Amino acid sequence: MSLFGLGLDSTLSIIASVASLALAGAMAVWVGKQSGGTEQMMDISKAVRTGASAFLRREFRIITPIAIGLAVAISLTSGFSNGVAFGVGAALSGIAGLIAMKITVKAAVRAAQATTKGLGHTLATAFRGGATVGLAIPAMALIGVTALYMLYPEPITIAGVGIGASLIALFIRAGGGIFTKAADLGADLVGKVEVGIPEDDPRNPATIADNVGDNVGDAAGMGSDVYESYIVTLLAAMLLGALIVSEVASKGLTLPFTSTQLIVYPIVIGAAGLIASIIGALTVTPRKMTDPMKPLNVAFIVSAAIAITLNFVVTTVILDSSALSYALFAATVMGVILVPVIQRITDYYTSYKYKPVKEIGESTQWGYASNMLAGIITGLRSTMPFMLAIVITLAVSYAVTFSISGDPLIGIYGTAIAAMAMLSLAGIVLSIDSFGPISDNAGGIVEMTSMGEENRRITDQIDAVGNTTKAVTKGFAIASAGLAALAMIQAFQHEAANIFVNKVLVYSLSNPNVIIGLLVGGLLPFFISSQLISGVNRAAMRLVDEIRRQFKQDPGILAGTSKPDYAKCIDIATSASIKQLFKPAIITVASPIVLGVVLGPTAVAGLLMGAVISGIFLAYHMANSGGAWDNAKKYIEILGKKKTQEHEVAVVGDLIGDPYKDTAGPALNTVIKLLNTVAIVFVSIFFGFVNI
Amino acid sequence: MSLFGLGLDSTLSIIASVASLALAGAMAVWVGKQSGGTEQMMDISKAVRTGASAFLRREFRIITPIAIGLAVAISLTSGFSNGVAFGVGAALSGIAGLIAMKITVKAAVRAAQATTKGLGHTLATAFRGGATVGLAIPAMALIGVTALYMLYPEPITIAGVGIGASLIALFIRAGGGIFTKAADLGADLVGKVEVGIPEDDPRNPATIADNVGDNVGDAAGMGSDVYESYIVTLLAAMLLGALIVSEVASKGLTLPFTSTQLIVYPIVIGAAGLIASIIGALTVTPRKMTDPMKPLNVAFIVSAAIAITLNFVVTTVILDSSALSYALFAATVMGVILVPVIQRITDYYTSYKYKPVKEIGESTQWGYASNMLAGIITGLRSTMPFMLAIVITLAVSYAVTFSISGDPLIGIYGTAIAAMAMLSLAGIVLSIDSFGPISDNAGGIVEMTSMGEENRRITDQIDAVGNTTKAVTKGFAIASAGLAALAMIQAFQHEAANIFVNKVLVYSLSNPNVIIGLLVGGLLPFFISSQLISGVNRAAMRLVDEIRRQFKQDPGILAGTSKPDYAKCIDIATSASIKQLFKPAIITVASPIVLGVVLGPTAVAGLLMGAVISGIFLAYHMANSGGAWDNAKKYIEILGKKKTQEHEVAVVGDLIGDPYKDTAGPALNTVIKLLNTVAIVFVSIFFGFVNI
Repeated sequence: MSLFGLGLDSTLSIIASVASLALAGAMAVWVGKQSGGTEQMMDISKAVRTGASAFLRREFRIITPIAIGLAVAISLTSGFSNGVAFGVGAALSGIAGLIAMKITVKAAVRAAQATTKGLGHTLATAFRGGATVGLAIPAMALIGVTALYMLYPEPITIAGVGIGASLIALFIRAGGGIFTKAADLGADLVGKVEVGIPEDDPRNPATIADNVGDNVGDAAGMGSDVYESYIVTLLAAMLLGALIVSEVASKGLTLPFTSTQLIVYPIVIGAAGLIASIIGALTVTPRKMTDPMKPLNVAFIVSAAIAITLNFVVTTVILDSSALSYALFAATVMGVILVPVIQRITDYYTSYKYKPVKEIGESTQWGYASNMLAGIITGLRSTMPFMLAIVITLAVSYAVTFSISGDPLIGIYGTAIAAMAMLSLAGIVLSIDSFGPISDNAGGIVEMTSMGEENRRITDQIDAVGNTTKAVTKGFAIASAGLAALAMIQAFQHEAANIFVNKVLVYSLSNPNVIIGLLVGGLLPFFISSQLISGVNRAAMRLVDEIRRQFKQDPGILAGTSKPDYAKCIDIATSASIKQLFKPAIITVASPIVLGVVLGPTAVAGLLMGAVISGIFLAYHMANSGGAWDNAKKYIEILGKKKTQEHEVAVVGDLIGDPYKDTAGPALNTVIKLLNTVAIVFVSIFFGFVNI
Repeated sequence: MSLFGLGLDSTLSIIASVASLALAGAMAVWVGKQSGGTEQMMDISKAVRTGASAFLRREFRIITPIAIGLAVAISLTSGFSNGVAFGVGAALSGIAGLIAMKITVKAAVRAAQATTKGLGHTLATAFRGGATVGLAIPAMALIGVTALYMLYPEPITIAGVGIGASLIALFIRAGGGIFTKAADLGADLVGKVEVGIPEDDPRNPATIADNVGDNVGDAAGMGSDVYESYIVTLLAAMLLGALIVSEVASKGLTLPFTSTQLIVYPIVIGAAGLIASIIGALTVTPRKMTDPMKPLNVAFIVSAAIAITLNFVVTTVILDSSALSYALFAATVMGVILVPVIQRITDYYTSYKYKPVKEIGESTQWGYASNMLAGIITGLRSTMPFMLAIVITLAVSYAVTFSISGDPLIGIYGTAIAAMAMLSLAGIVLSIDSFGPISDNAGGIVEMTSMGEENRRITDQIDAVGNTTKAVTKGFAIASAGLAALAMIQAFQHEAANIFVNKVLVYSLSNPNVIIGLLVGGLLPFFISSQLISGVNRAAMRLVDEIRRQFKQDPGILAGTSKPDYAKCIDIATSASIKQLFKPAIITVASPIVLGVVLGPTAVAGLLMGAVISGIFLAYHMANSGGAWDNAKKYIEILGKKKTQEHEVAVVGDLIGDPYKDTAGPALNTVIKLLNTVAIVFVSIFFGFVNI
């Protein structure tokens, strides 16, 4: 038994969150104090900031009425507390997006200027900008859920927080994903391919939109994605914790833990991971260095080691020193280990240091089709070790907790705890990730302001690292989405069984409702991907028209004598991306509700499972195919083959990969989780009118 | 109650099969009697025939020891009868492949010669060649299963027939798929793209290999695929039929039918469809015509109408005139209707008459990346109506049979009967499909022998129709694979429950075994696709080297003065395709066995379901993306844009689509079914040593 009551556990979580937010603030201040460089640099930075703000403002203007409508609907169907929770989840998610956006823009220009002081300083500036985002986001998720739980100490009554997080994440992640790639594709299609000016050339009217896109999609998008995973996983573990004691009691058994202990345990795991992330983030300082990947790796290893140690301590304190407690601790170890394993797998398939990307690079000599197929193959193939890592984590964390407790639900709780331990490292993972778009943008600014060879060399170096960290974080985000969803599906099944006690709910593969659900769910990732990629295509085509128009109307732009109309391009990308988002968003929200109302909770459970099954592999395939093409292009460039036919082929591969890795792939994470949060919040209306 | 016993039912099936085989024979004789044209034409035909035989001989030489080993393993684990059934299934499948190959080659050269007599005669020659294949294959499947059932009147004891069919199908379908696309890709990469000679130019050393590939992949492959679906579906329906009476009795209810009636009912549905197909096939005659699609459509409609009528008759005769019988008849109607619905959906997404392909064609003006993405989008999007069609068929056929019987297992039997009714039209569907590769090859022969503008116009016309029928049959094959697998998964769950009576088998989405199975199964289609596409790429690269070598060593080849070494290219493509097949084949056979032995039948059920869920959508996406790119290229050509930049882009799209639509996509059908047949045959050894 714990020595502490609820009060102290929550206090621990609040202390960790506040400390994390304070450090994030301090890092933001540190970044702000760095020099922003020349007036030209600040001008560009301001243009990007203005564009990014315009995008977010427009998104929020559209989301707000939808969110209010949803808050009312949730309050009416699932209680006022859920409505409040929804509001908190959505508001914090919006704030997280805003912070990510603002600090990324700020840090980018300062990192560009820091190149004058050397690699170490540039890295530290970019990393601390990233850490501001990385530390703030899980802290807000943790403090938000903790506060809600203190207000309403019954997890199911605050499940709305998940739907709030998911909705905003969908808009920022998928909307941002369309925006960023439409801008990128449009800029490249005309700039690089048609008129042959380099990337980030200020003569390209879509350059600023492209830079805004890096912030919108990569920084704000990834932030809201992980924020969502964090909340959904935490919530699922808490829901399962709340269910265990009563279920065990109904079987005539007793458990040495109270409900409260099992509910707060995942919260405290989150707090432990956050403290570990803080310490890890502090190890990156502006010292001299040659390999910028090293300090990032050290930061992660420090965080992971501390997380494991702290998890051991909090397990014995919050729970006890019984065999079952140690089994749950073992599950947290599995979760922590999964992070570097997934990162290593993703790195292998997407970095030009290894065979797969090298082969894609070499395939360019055979032409477009071969390069295209080589990228597809790599992405498809990478799903195998990814699946094995997830299955082993699930199987081991289930096996240890089930074998000691003898209760399947505790085994499932064990898998949710493993997922939570994985997510608890979000602080350091996101810090390292957010470093990516900052260094990318810093490189853009160096390019646009023609700062010089040496500065460009430094930003190229950190940009290469940033590309790797961005790619591996995608793997983390997909795995976390999958585990979050799998935990939530279990919570959903039990909640539905609790609510519909008068119905026999058979979640079996021989129930046609489940089969229909699986088919519908299995379809959704495929169909929604098509919507999102075509959204990119359509938006990009509109941008292409606009860029061509500007070049044609004012030949001075290409000559470098007059300034292109950046704002117009941003405006087109914004309106197009929001427009393209509606259909997928409505399908995602509506399908579990419609299926639940018509066929009942068993069909919904099938739908949720089907979406995870096809969704995580499709997402991983798309993320890794895209990442691999991107780095195959870099590989060709490193071989000194710029401006060859092979490079041209590789550029096309990269163009194709963009919507894969930055739009459809990551958006699927959000879709998978949104389906689950909608299902759990609306479970009480899933009567199932038809019973086939 | 039936007026007839087992004897007459089987007799009906045998009569239909023999009639169908006789008609197939007569058509083959008719085709054989047509003129084979000039000596040059016969030479080419002979080269293709020799190449095709070389491919098949080599395949059989490798399969035979594997098949013998498997027959022994099956006999030992699942009884001698299953071993015999396996042998029958495999042997008939091999014969079906041989027939398809031989007649396709024979008919192609005669259809080419028939162009001298006009469109009507060409169509009839190509169609009757196709009908030989189309009528022989389901007849052999039906007569094989009927004979086995007469020998061993217990369906589970002859389940091995499914594994035999599946194994050969995998080798012919997937091995042939790699062969055909490697040959095609290799020939195009050097011929069209590098040296700029047209398709089917006899100067290209890989031309004959490419032609052989059309026979191997399209004709033999599709034939063995549908043969496999037919057998698996029939078997699943019979297995379910055998289970119903005892299950219903165990609930204290009685059913007006005997086990035997429910087992022979699907056989008789198959016989009815075969008779309907025969009559439909006879409507295509060498008369005057302008639109070659029309007589094919008429043939199908006639068959479908007759099938529905006959199904009504056999339902009342074999079963009775009760409401439940009519409900089962309604399920057969759903199955028959599904065929044109799936065909229409597939046609919409892959024919240049409609918006999707036109848009892909127009995207070529934006360059390679846009065309690529447009094709991906179309394929992904097409999964939505496809899913709806399948779900509605399943839901309605379940609902009508369940609502009248009140028994879920009868509802599931209803869905299997719908699937069987769909497959019962395989005769006419395959006839129309096999027409495709024949007209394709006829076009090739006309081109290679420079027969003249008018002849080429006729073959172009029937080739366009053939492309459509090939594309829509892919949709049929995927849907039939999905339905066959879904029926088999149900049979598997019940068989396992019958065998492991001492175990509680919970096939629930909250069972971690099921979840692990779903994850592993969901992965397989993605991973195996990567293996197959990379197999094509590797084999094609080896061919490219060879073609380049020949062009370099002997400049007379391109000048047209010396003959290239066709045999060498065929040999390379054959050995490469077989080599690339081993890993996917072993993974497919081993994964259900390993999972079953380690984790037990619930994990296997999860695996089977996971593979269907991700597999059918991935297969449909790949088939339709590929088909759409192919026809987008044709669309560009029809617009008169040959030799423009846009056409070049479209050619690349087609190249990328080839392994999608002709290798990975169709192979997934076979993988999905092979997993199921392996699972049902080896079910008795799935103890599940570990129980997590």
